[in-house]
Amino acid sequence: MILYGYPMSSAAYRVRIALALKGIEVTTVIKQLRRGEQRAKDFLQVNPQGFVPVLCLDDGQVLTQSLAIIEYLDEAYPQPPLLPDTAPDRARVRALSLLIACDIHPLNNLRVLQYLEGSLSAAQGTRDTWYRHWIEAGFEALEQSLGRDPARGRFCYGDAPSLADVCLVPQVFNARRYSVDLAPFPRIAAIDAACHEIAAFAGAAPEKQ
Amino acid sequence: MILYGYPMSSAAYRVRIALALKGIEVTTVIKQLRRGEQRAKDFLQVNPQGFVPVLCLDDGQVLTQSLAIIEYLDEAYPQPPLLPDTAPDRARVRALSLLIACDIHPLNNLRVLQYLEGSLSAAQGTRDTWYRHWIEAGFEALEQSLGRDPARGRFCYGDAPSLADVCLVPQVFNARRYSVDLAPFPRIAAIDAACHEIAAFAGAAPEKQ
Repeated sequence: MILYGYPMSSAAYRVRIALALKGIEVTTVIKQLRRGEQRAKDFLQVNPQGFVPVLCLDDGQVLTQSLAIIEYLDEAYPQPPLLPDTAPDRARVRALSLLIACDIHPLNNLRVLQYLEGSLSAAQGTRDTWYRHWIEAGFEALEQSLGRDPARGRFCYGDAPSLADVCLVPQVFNARRYSVDLAPFPRIAAIDAACHEIAAFAGAAPEKQ
Repeated sequence: MILYGYPMSSAAYRVRIALALKGIEVTTVIKQLRRGEQRAKDFLQVNPQGFVPVLCLDDGQVLTQSLAIIEYLDEAYPQPPLLPDTAPDRARVRALSLLIACDIHPLNNLRVLQYLEGSLSAAQGTRDTWYRHWIEAGFEALEQSLGRDPARGRFCYGDAPSLADVCLVPQVFNARRYSVDLAPFPRIAAIDAACHEIAAFAGAAPEKQ
């Protein structure tokens, strides 16, 4: 399999963690997002959206969207599972994941920051405040959801990593990069620390690519 | 089951379609988003994120995030299925769904438009351009993805509605509301029209609530 990615892309970071947790080796091709390589014609042939990550299966099928890729990996390579056994518990883990993947991350994507700068003439400070605002709003809800969840253990769900942790760690990485104060989010910080003790998470970090 | 929703919320609209396709009846409670009812203390006890939709199961479990709710419904009430049989095909349908649910819809949420207005002093015209920009960027990629997909039939995947159509129809509704020209997106428009022939889609529309 071939993974098209970029070290600093949160969505690609999620897929790297999932692959590592499953022990799956892939060939990695890096697309330099800041140089616009993802909008080159040959890559748009692979993914018309011009986004990473993209996972190309050995039979030529092309998978896009990080959560769709990770659900695929979890179905095709069931061990260790990234989702719980029961439907309501799976919904709970998916909801935590989607809170990050829908309600935080897309607002802070490179293309959005570029739109704020180019079309709205938003200065660096305004863009940084925007970036932190959506992380903090999301983390406040996430911290409270984790606090009331009887299923929370060392990780978002129980004592083994799930899809929610796979989404959380790259988002915490982004939060640190933009100097978001994590003190109001002790549960998130503790889960992030627990994840970093696992080689699959540590090895997938942007600085390790 | 109780569904907390709002007629004009795209995410709640998705869940209404899925419930109707499955033939599941629920009690609906409307939260008036423009009056801020979703941020009232009693509702934040239900969902700390203060978002609709929320589905409360009969045993008291609380499900949030529309895609997590719909995946739950598809697991708990398998007929008719909203995802294909094979893992790569499920990934394809999920990817189309996430393109809408992650890369279009969250950028045009009420809270984002309010931030643009309040914190960035963006005028109505600027906000409308923003709104259309993200729909058009997403629809361009979606239109191309649909065009190259051998699995596309009358609907996004094959000849029966899937999760992707459940996400598409509310997004097309939003596009029309903001006068996005759909002429460049004939596949999207045709699928939307095919969906509206189905009672579950037609009956879930905001104007029918």
